[in-house]
Amino acid sequence: MNFPTVHLGLPEWVADFLSSRSTKLPAIEDRMRLAIDLARENVRHGGGPFGAAIFDLRDHWLLAPGVNLVVQSGNSVAHAEMVSIMIAQKSAGSHDLSLGGVRRCELVSSSQPCAQCFGAIPWAGLASLVCGASARTAESIGFDEGPIPGNWAEELEERGIRVTVRVLANEATAVLREYVEAGHSVY
Amino acid sequence: MNFPTVHLGLPEWVADFLSSRSTKLPAIEDRMRLAIDLARENVRHGGGPFGAAIFDLRDHWLLAPGVNLVVQSGNSVAHAEMVSIMIAQKSAGSHDLSLGGVRRCELVSSSQPCAQCFGAIPWAGLASLVCGASARTAESIGFDEGPIPGNWAEELEERGIRVTVRVLANEATAVLREYVEAGHSVY
Repeated sequence: MNFPTVHLGLPEWVADFLSSRSTKLPAIEDRMRLAIDLARENVRHGGGPFGAAIFDLRDHWLLAPGVNLVVQSGNSVAHAEMVSIMIAQKSAGSHDLSLGGVRRCELVSSSQPCAQCFGAIPWAGLASLVCGASARTAESIGFDEGPIPGNWAEELEERGIRVTVRVLANEATAVLREYVEAGHSVY
Repeated sequence: MNFPTVHLGLPEWVADFLSSRSTKLPAIEDRMRLAIDLARENVRHGGGPFGAAIFDLRDHWLLAPGVNLVVQSGNSVAHAEMVSIMIAQKSAGSHDLSLGGVRRCELVSSSQPCAQCFGAIPWAGLASLVCGASARTAESIGFDEGPIPGNWAEELEERGIRVTVRVLANEATAVLREYVEAGHSVY
């Protein structure tokens, strides 16, 4: 029996989009704005309204962008956060982004991670998670975030992962709202 | 900026391993035994002690095997369950395994899914989850299952996913125990 290989790559527009922007972003709001703009651009290109990015906190360079590729790639795992984690690890050549045991990578996500992406974060070797729209807000707009524990942030903090919420939350929420109001399907 | 494409494929030994076995398995214990044997074979080939498989419940044919490929592939997402989900969806050509809206796919996992894989299950279009070793047992042996909600099975059942636990639990647990006793690193 033969089984296919799964390929997961960023759409071509991402490189063009990033070529016109700075990708060294010392301010947390600028890092979040990149994730939000990736979400908005992804919608323009037929994808879901979610963007993410992994930065090296030592120098604030972008290591890996991510966008929701579920429908385009036929892969329910391919949420923006998972895409950025897998690409960052591919670049690093390791499943553990705390290379040398020193955690230094930040995952910035335009929306609070769903249950899957929340569960993936402890395994990735991340130092920090930064969220835009809250899961509660996303759910009030119509998105299903899955069964997230009520104490999700504490669970990550206890594992040594700093959590920062509601960074540019209004801008992040606007992308979700625009997506639903434009009549796109929520899956 | 250019970012790499992530490739995720089964190791070559999996096809050889399956060529000598039946992959149409009407009995749930036989489907679990396949997942457990994949876990054991994965350890023999340098991987983690976790195996999974997705079956079509209409005819009980294997659709996609999975093994833990975290270290080999440098990808913390690549747990056995995630590998089998992504390969099954690639074969199906859709992110939704309930093709035509009729759920018919069963995920069999040698161990209860960790927090990440638990959170991934609602998005995959699965009809059913079958587990071998419990998370509690795996944790007592030294594996970290992550922050799984206490009512995890009910959460899945409420979403229309049937959950069956402790199928060949002793055999499944033995693979985890052998792995630790052989001095392999638990990551």
